[in-house]
Amino acid sequence: MNHDNTGTPVTVIGLGLMGQALAGAFLKAGHPTTVWNRTTSKADQLVAQGARLAPTVGDALKAASLAIICVTDYQAMHELLGSGVELDGTMLINLTSGDSAQARDAARWAEQRGARYLDGAIMAVPPAIGTAEAVILHSGPQPDFEAHKSTLDALGTATYLGADPGLASLYDVAGLAMMWSVLNAWLQGTALLRTAGVDAATYAPFAQQMATGVAGWLPGYAEQIDSGSFPAEVSALETDARAMEHLIAESEAVGVNAEWPKLMKAMADRSIAAGHGGEQYPVLIEEFGKPRGA
Amino acid sequence: MNHDNTGTPVTVIGLGLMGQALAGAFLKAGHPTTVWNRTTSKADQLVAQGARLAPTVGDALKAASLAIICVTDYQAMHELLGSGVELDGTMLINLTSGDSAQARDAARWAEQRGARYLDGAIMAVPPAIGTAEAVILHSGPQPDFEAHKSTLDALGTATYLGADPGLASLYDVAGLAMMWSVLNAWLQGTALLRTAGVDAATYAPFAQQMATGVAGWLPGYAEQIDSGSFPAEVSALETDARAMEHLIAESEAVGVNAEWPKLMKAMADRSIAAGHGGEQYPVLIEEFGKPRGA
Ligand SMILES: NC(=O)c1ccc[n+]([C@@H]2O[C@H](COP(=O)([O-])OP(=O)(O)OC[C@H]3O[C@@H](n4cnc5c(N)ncnc54)[C@H](OP(=O)(O)O)[C@@H]3O)[C@@H](O)[C@H]2O)c1
Ligand SMILES: NC(=O)c1ccc[n+]([C@@H]2O[C@H](COP(=O)([O-])OP(=O)(O)OC[C@H]3O[C@@H](n4cnc5c(N)ncnc54)[C@H](OP(=O)(O)O)[C@@H]3O)[C@@H](O)[C@H]2O)c1
Repeated sequence: MNHDNTGTPVTVIGLGLMGQALAGAFLKAGHPTTVWNRTTSKADQLVAQGARLAPTVGDALKAASLAIICVTDYQAMHELLGSGVELDGTMLINLTSGDSAQARDAARWAEQRGARYLDGAIMAVPPAIGTAEAVILHSGPQPDFEAHKSTLDALGTATYLGADPGLASLYDVAGLAMMWSVLNAWLQGTALLRTAGVDAATYAPFAQQMATGVAGWLPGYAEQIDSGSFPAEVSALETDARAMEHLIAESEAVGVNAEWPKLMKAMADRSIAAGHGGEQYPVLIEEFGKPRGA
Repeated sequence: MNHDNTGTPVTVIGLGLMGQALAGAFLKAGHPTTVWNRTTSKADQLVAQGARLAPTVGDALKAASLAIICVTDYQAMHELLGSGVELDGTMLINLTSGDSAQARDAARWAEQRGARYLDGAIMAVPPAIGTAEAVILHSGPQPDFEAHKSTLDALGTATYLGADPGLASLYDVAGLAMMWSVLNAWLQGTALLRTAGVDAATYAPFAQQMATGVAGWLPGYAEQIDSGSFPAEVSALETDARAMEHLIAESEAVGVNAEWPKLMKAMADRSIAAGHGGEQYPVLIEEFGKPRGA
């Protein structure tokens, strides 16, 4: 990140908690920053730090060749950038959270309006913005990402995923699923160990080691999925299912919630019933890949 | 591990897939090894490698001051070591899988029979036995573990957890819960990304990085649990619950199973309904700590 004041001019539209953090990080990195927000007062602090407040969204877009938008949802973006606003020639990076279909629709919509478009997803909280810890995912045309990467680096670790604009949203929710799953498994274990008087701090390093160890298997396991063949090289799914019974029984015996283990077991049992008991765990991709849970 | 033939004599009772691997590892490390199994033929290969086959369980126990038992379940152990068998003075390490209550009962039973007892849990598959990768958990009197640790090192990474004999079983199932949770989250993400043509091998390193990153938060999050106070330093549970909705909606939109995300959301919603929406994620320990899921 550079700290002179000769950075690339940028525009930030939407100054909620996240938009304010984004604009603040651009200012800190020395980018001349124009901002706009529906509720004007949210720009006050940024203006005090050197930002320029544009009177209209259209003016904000004209102030820089790169515009970041970060509002509540895609509907808010479409309301803001409706037909009265000139988008032709704008490079728009949309960091608003949404799903992959909304991102792909927005990419088509932007193209029709003469704008270039990258979709993004912020995997960080506002206070982390501006540090390497803040991973920001991008998808869309690679040349557009490459052209602006050095500017985007002011916000965190700018990551490019591929040309399909839906990828940022998909990786975002997939990453969150991993986050909550690790946390829930840790809570399940912590609840179990507390019944034996083991405190959370004592158990946490074991859980950390386990999660990190299993994470290391994923690239190898991925080969089974990509090849569509699941030989039980390490253990068979029915062995896992029997051990899941131990987890359920232990949880129930010590008076701990057994819902999380029971869902694991239910999914494994369905796969075993479909004839996959002798194959290895990643064969469960067939259960995860099916619509279910409505 | 030493490779001379002057190691400590050991006995292995139960020669299923796991018992054979255990006895084989002792032999390789140079421990004079006596074995016994109900079905005698399972000893053949070990005898060819230098093991001594005892004619009865009682003889097997007399052959060494340290005896490992690894059979199907605790009931099988109790049948095998019933009242006709002399246990007085034996150091018994039970590596049979079971729950914490069974382990605590077995410790009392062994004490009444005049034996010393450690409970254990093997967190590895048979081919890994004898390598550092094979983590074997032990709980019970620490002096007994310390006295035999150098011998147990022949089997893998011998880990001591504490005096409560139930701890090995509890850590075992807690660790497995982490294993299946990381795998399931990865499968959920892989299923989502496949709908956009991303193969499992491309997604796996991202999932690995995410799991490893989140695992690093656990020791810090544990402090909130141990102090019983959950300030939303990073984000509030209701923010997580809103993002869970994105995960569910995305899964449903692309035709992927939404059961796993929906259970996450259901548990978060219950905690929010109980008034914890403004607190941080580890407050969910209260949901995990409640009996539920019957
Ligand atoms: N905060 C986080 O931790 C976090 C993390 C990752 C991703 N995100 C994502 O970042 C985006 C913004 O989040 P945030 O935390 O900044 O939310 P926020 O504090 O609630 O701010 C919402 C922003 O959207 C604007 N807005 C909403 N509807 C609008 C409309 N119809 N017309 C014009 N402006 C409208 C608001 O303008 P007003 O000020 O005028 O209301 C405000 O600037 C969301 O998609 C969120 O999921 C947030
Ligand atoms: N295999 C793994 O990947 C693995 C991993 C971790 C933990 N473990 C645990 O290790 C233990 C043994 O597993 P394993 O894979 O070796 O199982 P296995 O191959 O099915 O062997 C079971 C063993 O128990 C004996 N047995 C069962 N009931 C008996 C009875 N009533 N009287 C006498 N002997 C009896 C069997 O004797 P016979 O040969 O005469 O039938 C055999 O030696 C289990 O608790 C398992 O959960 C296994």
